[in-house]
Amino acid sequence: MCQLLGMNCNVPTDIVFSFTGFATRGGLTDEHKDGWGIAFFEGTGVRLFVDHQSAVASPVAELIKRYPIQSKNVIAHIRKATQGQVALENCHPFVRELWGRYWVFAHNGDLKNFAPVLDGAFRPVGTTDSELAFCYLLQELRKRFGNVAPDTPALKIALDELTRAIASYGVFNMMLSDGSALFAHCSTRLHYIVRQYPFEEAKLSDEDLSVDFSEVTTPNDRVAIIVTEPLTTNENWHAFSVGELKVFVDGKPLN
Amino acid sequence: MCQLLGMNCNVPTDIVFSFTGFATRGGLTDEHKDGWGIAFFEGTGVRLFVDHQSAVASPVAELIKRYPIQSKNVIAHIRKATQGQVALENCHPFVRELWGRYWVFAHNGDLKNFAPVLDGAFRPVGTTDSELAFCYLLQELRKRFGNVAPDTPALKIALDELTRAIASYGVFNMMLSDGSALFAHCSTRLHYIVRQYPFEEAKLSDEDLSVDFSEVTTPNDRVAIIVTEPLTTNENWHAFSVGELKVFVDGKPLN
Repeated sequence: MCQLLGMNCNVPTDIVFSFTGFATRGGLTDEHKDGWGIAFFEGTGVRLFVDHQSAVASPVAELIKRYPIQSKNVIAHIRKATQGQVALENCHPFVRELWGRYWVFAHNGDLKNFAPVLDGAFRPVGTTDSELAFCYLLQELRKRFGNVAPDTPALKIALDELTRAIASYGVFNMMLSDGSALFAHCSTRLHYIVRQYPFEEAKLSDEDLSVDFSEVTTPNDRVAIIVTEPLTTNENWHAFSVGELKVFVDGKPLN
Repeated sequence: MCQLLGMNCNVPTDIVFSFTGFATRGGLTDEHKDGWGIAFFEGTGVRLFVDHQSAVASPVAELIKRYPIQSKNVIAHIRKATQGQVALENCHPFVRELWGRYWVFAHNGDLKNFAPVLDGAFRPVGTTDSELAFCYLLQELRKRFGNVAPDTPALKIALDELTRAIASYGVFNMMLSDGSALFAHCSTRLHYIVRQYPFEEAKLSDEDLSVDFSEVTTPNDRVAIIVTEPLTTNENWHAFSVGELKVFVDGKPLN
């Protein structure tokens, strides 16, 4: 199994604090040592870092911890291999283009006997069930909506149906973003928090590190963090319901 | 205008020496300061680094110079913006998936009144003529060959036709790789060299740096470097003919 981390904000924000705690689980406080990856949207562009070294050992992870990339949508993943060998092409997040936008996807879980028919529009490069599910999702979205991107509520309805169908093959916690919204589906475990004014101090559960967000934010900032297991010990994380899909826009979940 | 750098090898090789000279042109010895990027194939996976800072100032470029990533196919690009603003989504190389493989593309030049009809299978995210040309190339390859990837000679014939047609709209020096072969089309300027046994010392033209390849290679290694302008002062670079497409496999050009 793997762990997921997502961030959705109303202004570009750096994820250094949350990533530091999360990366620690990649080989130090947890067993997720078979590679990791992180994708940052910057406008419509994507900066993707993937590595098949553990997040603890990776010089690229070290760079990210020191180099605060500002982004409104981030998805990160640390991997404990279940299907697919430890190789770069099997590292999440995966990226594809649909409707002239990049889509970033990461998955936690394991699908059994999941073998959808692919029409060739999106095909996996690696050998994971995760990339296969991503390709299937995009294919089905394109089938439903053709060449014209739907609005976020219509996308949410479609993704709710599709993710439930895929989750019937096993465990399918997933995050998906096109740079404007972040969709998160909970099949077994997923938590989120919205940080907004008045900001307070947060203390990482995986490393002896605190940050006082009131010192690094403005009153208008709003940041949603979505993660497999809560990252801090002194904040009130919300658990997703099993089977629930949430969409985050501008740092908060849409109703 | 921009500059291109490609590497194709028979064994995974690091590009630190050539990239060091090439990156110097990104803002120091030359005017290509509007972003840069580099893509490394590792097996079928791709590691892509793009930045809209100049290659001289970028901490990510610094990482690459210090962290020898081993790859058989690399494409790098430094940008002097002609079309499209300076933004992450306009940085080369661009990556798309076709036939279950990633394709990496970079372009040097400028296309005028190039407005092909796109069917929606591949659409640009940014606003460059380059990404538009890449999407059109992949669309046309998929139209010709359907869902089954052709062999390299058949691909070369198709790409020769397509790149000549695109080049009729302006300047179209380009590099394209699927991780097994590297295709390079010369519209105005492109050079290459094949380094193989007996290896000798090479001296960078942009920086006071030499490397004795005989100390870091085995007799079986073979490396082709393809670049806009020769990188070293003491080696014999070959100029492409205008309109020529070459395909490099295992460190040498195919006939």
